[in-house]
Amino acid sequence: MSSSEKSSEELKGADMALQVYLSGEIHTNWRDVIVRKAGEAGLDVAFHAPVTDHAASDDCGVTILGAESDKFWHDHKGAKLNAIRTRRLIEQSDVVVVCFGEKYRQWNAAFDAGYAAALGKSLVVLHGADHQHALKEIDAAALAVTETPEQIVEILRYVLTGELPISKRPA
Amino acid sequence: MSSSEKSSEELKGADMALQVYLSGEIHTNWRDVIVRKAGEAGLDVAFHAPVTDHAASDDCGVTILGAESDKFWHDHKGAKLNAIRTRRLIEQSDVVVVCFGEKYRQWNAAFDAGYAAALGKSLVVLHGADHQHALKEIDAAALAVTETPEQIVEILRYVLTGELPISKRPA
Amino acid sequence: MSSSEKSSEELKGADMALQVYLSGEIHTNWRDVIVRKAGEAGLDVAFHAPVTDHAASDDCGVTILGAESDKFWHDHKGAKLNAIRTRRLIEQSDVVVVCFGEKYRQWNAAFDAGYAAALGKSLVVLHGADHQHALKEIDAAALAVTETPEQIVEILRYVLTGELPISKRPA
Amino acid sequence: MSSSEKSSEELKGADMALQVYLSGEIHTNWRDVIVRKAGEAGLDVAFHAPVTDHAASDDCGVTILGAESDKFWHDHKGAKLNAIRTRRLIEQSDVVVVCFGEKYRQWNAAFDAGYAAALGKSLVVLHGADHQHALKEIDAAALAVTETPEQIVEILRYVLTGELPISKRPA
Amino acid sequence: MSSSEKSSEELKGADMALQVYLSGEIHTNWRDVIVRKAGEAGLDVAFHAPVTDHAASDDCGVTILGAESDKFWHDHKGAKLNAIRTRRLIEQSDVVVVCFGEKYRQWNAAFDAGYAAALGKSLVVLHGADHQHALKEIDAAALAVTETPEQIVEILRYVLTGELPISKRPA
Amino acid sequence: MSSSEKSSEELKGADMALQVYLSGEIHTNWRDVIVRKAGEAGLDVAFHAPVTDHAASDDCGVTILGAESDKFWHDHKGAKLNAIRTRRLIEQSDVVVVCFGEKYRQWNAAFDAGYAAALGKSLVVLHGADHQHALKEIDAAALAVTETPEQIVEILRYVLTGELPISKRPA
Amino acid sequence: MSSSEKSSEELKGADMALQVYLSGEIHTNWRDVIVRKAGEAGLDVAFHAPVTDHAASDDCGVTILGAESDKFWHDHKGAKLNAIRTRRLIEQSDVVVVCFGEKYRQWNAAFDAGYAAALGKSLVVLHGADHQHALKEIDAAALAVTETPEQIVEILRYVLTGELPISKRPA
Amino acid sequence: MSSSEKSSEELKGADMALQVYLSGEIHTNWRDVIVRKAGEAGLDVAFHAPVTDHAASDDCGVTILGAESDKFWHDHKGAKLNAIRTRRLIEQSDVVVVCFGEKYRQWNAAFDAGYAAALGKSLVVLHGADHQHALKEIDAAALAVTETPEQIVEILRYVLTGELPISKRPA
Repeated sequence: MSSSEKSSEELKGADMALQVYLSGEIHTNWRDVIVRKAGEAGLDVAFHAPVTDHAASDDCGVTILGAESDKFWHDHKGAKLNAIRTRRLIEQSDVVVVCFGEKYRQWNAAFDAGYAAALGKSLVVLHGADHQHALKEIDAAALAVTETPEQIVEILRYVLTGELPISKRPA
Repeated sequence: MSSSEKSSEELKGADMALQVYLSGEIHTNWRDVIVRKAGEAGLDVAFHAPVTDHAASDDCGVTILGAESDKFWHDHKGAKLNAIRTRRLIEQSDVVVVCFGEKYRQWNAAFDAGYAAALGKSLVVLHGADHQHALKEIDAAALAVTETPEQIVEILRYVLTGELPISKRPA
Repeated sequence: MSSSEKSSEELKGADMALQVYLSGEIHTNWRDVIVRKAGEAGLDVAFHAPVTDHAASDDCGVTILGAESDKFWHDHKGAKLNAIRTRRLIEQSDVVVVCFGEKYRQWNAAFDAGYAAALGKSLVVLHGADHQHALKEIDAAALAVTETPEQIVEILRYVLTGELPISKRPA
Repeated sequence: MSSSEKSSEELKGADMALQVYLSGEIHTNWRDVIVRKAGEAGLDVAFHAPVTDHAASDDCGVTILGAESDKFWHDHKGAKLNAIRTRRLIEQSDVVVVCFGEKYRQWNAAFDAGYAAALGKSLVVLHGADHQHALKEIDAAALAVTETPEQIVEILRYVLTGELPISKRPA
Repeated sequence: MSSSEKSSEELKGADMALQVYLSGEIHTNWRDVIVRKAGEAGLDVAFHAPVTDHAASDDCGVTILGAESDKFWHDHKGAKLNAIRTRRLIEQSDVVVVCFGEKYRQWNAAFDAGYAAALGKSLVVLHGADHQHALKEIDAAALAVTETPEQIVEILRYVLTGELPISKRPA
Repeated sequence: MSSSEKSSEELKGADMALQVYLSGEIHTNWRDVIVRKAGEAGLDVAFHAPVTDHAASDDCGVTILGAESDKFWHDHKGAKLNAIRTRRLIEQSDVVVVCFGEKYRQWNAAFDAGYAAALGKSLVVLHGADHQHALKEIDAAALAVTETPEQIVEILRYVLTGELPISKRPA
Repeated sequence: MSSSEKSSEELKGADMALQVYLSGEIHTNWRDVIVRKAGEAGLDVAFHAPVTDHAASDDCGVTILGAESDKFWHDHKGAKLNAIRTRRLIEQSDVVVVCFGEKYRQWNAAFDAGYAAALGKSLVVLHGADHQHALKEIDAAALAVTETPEQIVEILRYVLTGELPISKRPA
Repeated sequence: MSSSEKSSEELKGADMALQVYLSGEIHTNWRDVIVRKAGEAGLDVAFHAPVTDHAASDDCGVTILGAESDKFWHDHKGAKLNAIRTRRLIEQSDVVVVCFGEKYRQWNAAFDAGYAAALGKSLVVLHGADHQHALKEIDAAALAVTETPEQIVEILRYVLTGELPISKRPA
């Protein structure tokens, strides 16, 4: 937007579209909550995600490139195809949100967090209180540590518009 | 714009939209003056700013992420949320203008100036003459040192169009 | 696309346009196959290629800049003009596909692969099984090694949409 | 352009808009020739240039920021304002063309050439044969050395479309 | 070493000292095994490690900087002090070895792997076969996946000297 | 040190020499305290500092390069000479310590902090509690916030050796 | 060497040790010739090379990490181990010499040349005249194209000392 | 030097060896003056220079790599060999001094200045007052503009030790 179309009132907003990558946990609907609520709030955010279809993600390599008898190479081929998508999205994002859920090791999520941190991306972490100690190094590299998808949306709203949640605004 | 749509006359203009970040002082209306006058001059500039609502900026962290009993962590949470916005805007700007006003320590403004300088951004400083000696290192890193918002607008006009202020053009 | 226009269903797609550079072999129609099938699949990909007119590519330097009596300088001038195009396209691509055919030395293709790898681009290699041993270092730097143009299209489809080929989807 | 809208025929073109910075000599009309002929050829190029109004360029600093009694600081202030424009344009260009004319020292042009080379930009030089020996280091850093503006246009046409001048195409 | 002091025989060795960072698991003696065996083999490697005293690592922040009532900030202060050491060592290493053991979540190890990968470090992973599927993305980013510390030493020996284990050399 | 000379016991130390730049306040002896105590502790640290002779620092430009009648240019010349030293030292440091004292504006210190942060240096801040709110953005960019020079020494000891202060080690 | 130990006569030499990586052809003794003659000339050069034992280079992966039934993965494991050495050496070299011999495809050599070019290394190519046309793109990216190992030594001598071969010095 | 060997008195010196490249003019003895006086002052500086033997510099390419009938290629080959030395020295220097003399066009010097500026090197310029206007853009990119070699030595002394010339120290 050129300056001639913008009143000084509008300067309150950052006049930018944020690119946000939603990494990690793929077994709950946290991404849907964020995307829907950010949409309801009219935030100018482009959300990106890894392939969240677990079966497709596991088997993409051998399905496209040919079967492997050894599980290691089966997984290897798939992981590399997924990396084409994942790394490009992290590299072109402004904010990388990493969610750690209750199940599985989720080393992949922690790897993405380290990758994003080394690239200087703004890192936001989402996890339950029970993982606090185990995630302390990742939390320490983050610009925000959250417990709910709603907090992610509030952060994005604040970053984009400078506005705090209505019910909680300082008097 | 493709070359086929542009006469050589128009080459005088740089054919670019400048991204300009307005850092620093939040207690006077210097940003409004710049945005308004640049708009009146029809300059193709996208202006960006930090959150300038002092209360929101101070309290955003605890409001969204939960209260802290210790003032240090209260401020820490807020400063990190603000950094999501601030760093992205500095990193994607062409010109970073930093204004030092009369009040407060404004270390944050000087920090932004150092951050912008290290990234190789074009730095423009705005301050009164009384701060000249105290700001000498920052002025020395800048491509222009100004005293009024109008000078900022004239700089942007010249950078974009090659035109000097009418009343002052060399004969 | 802003979040408000995107249902959570659409998050499955990566919401990105991929820039893909098709390097290497210029004597078969592998690029046409990829471009056509990606078009039929509706993939949001911008494909780029070197100049594939062999005579023009060889003679561009002397044609534009003047004849050379020494073949070395004849080739030198042409190779440098081609480099203006090639390097820019590699540098601005997300994925670099390098095809090694049956004929010629194709050192140029291997050079492009090394150039792309050093820049951290996602490298995808396309070659017949008979070249496997000779290309092992390049294959080892790639995120996918393919034998047909159709596999390239399936990779791009998966990277963009998370969808596997219909006939091969895991049950 | 998405792949679905592009026939394989069109792949011959690089499907890119080139950003081209025209540095150096400001006393002849070489820029106008390039811009006009590129326009007639329908090339998708955005041309950029320094401020070419000699008086404005020399006096911009003191006109906007206040007079200086010492010629060194008069020039210093102006040179820094011009650097805001020049560096941004070089940094965001794909190709930097540097023209050395018959008059003046033109150290500024050589400085721009070095600046562009260090950033890895494609450098194209334009000068008469009489300067050949004095410019040998700069020519050696370039991807093309030309003697006429028309050659610049032919280079851009070839880089963008793969087409050589009709009258000179290899049989 | 200057060329005048080196016979061509010695060119077989890479004439370099490798910097190797040993990240991850701190409850078994795998680092000691690697350091001792590399020493016995006379390899020119400088090994580095995080602080492996679990209690010191957990409490360093509050011990030096003052107690915190909230466990989150207790951990936060410590994690940041540890990051001063960890990031510097990763950034200055040639090879980053990451070991995943049997116990704990070890997200920190995966974070280091991602950090190293984004910086373009040579990544070597060490883990048992049971973690193969869960670590597939990290394995896919590595240049070697090992199961024993002895394999790490053999890799370093080969990288430095070109020599394979005596008992296994190809006939 | 090569691996052959190092017992596994010694791996506890990071086997590195830290480069530490001590920026900021020049009117108290905090640098001397750090250097002396680090020396007594036998830490392998190379400390660097700006020129701390206030008069020399202010006048170096005009003394070497010639007098200026205008105070702005007097300061400008000096600030640029000091920048030759300051920027090189920050760029080559592992840790940048910035001390904010009781007197003066110290914008220079905040500028150095921003510069160091943008380069990804480990930032450690030293200031009294009364400046906590004003320095919150700089503290939020730091890996440690301290109140005494002794804490700086303890941090460096821990980073280098993994050892905590004897009197405070966890039982 | 500090300035106090150096007469102005010695400034003729560049006072630097060059790091030179010798990539490519492993079936003739070209590396030995270069290393020996550089040694005889007393040049301060550290030469580096890939593992040139063909059998070890091919089998290192499976020998250390375990056998593979599929030749592709056999080669893949080996190529990745070799990449640990190769990439580090290229990244830390000042000059990368790439030799193309008479036999084999040598795509690996061309890959190294592209990798070195993208990193901005000084590239020197060594090949017979019969490969001139096929290597034109790589030659165009090089700072010197040679036909004999002796020319490489003369280049290094000139770069280090400014001295030309005695028998050929200009009168 | 480790902290344990350094008294706080010595902190006044920067404890660093500066790498300084002396670019430009090769027909007067300005380099000798700087090297000799810096040596007399005991400054810890390593000076570097281009090949200053004019005939060798002009003819190195054809002497080593074979004659050319065309003067352009004669010069081209030489300029590229010189670039191996020049670029490495600039890239590894802390300070780049560029001297413009009375004779010749010296575009090469201005190119080096631009190259150094783009790499963020500290640039120091040396030239007579008569070139002031023609060199204003280069002076504006420099951290110091000098007229005599002695001023260069005083700058290096101040940067390294914080000491000003005895005769001129502020009272």
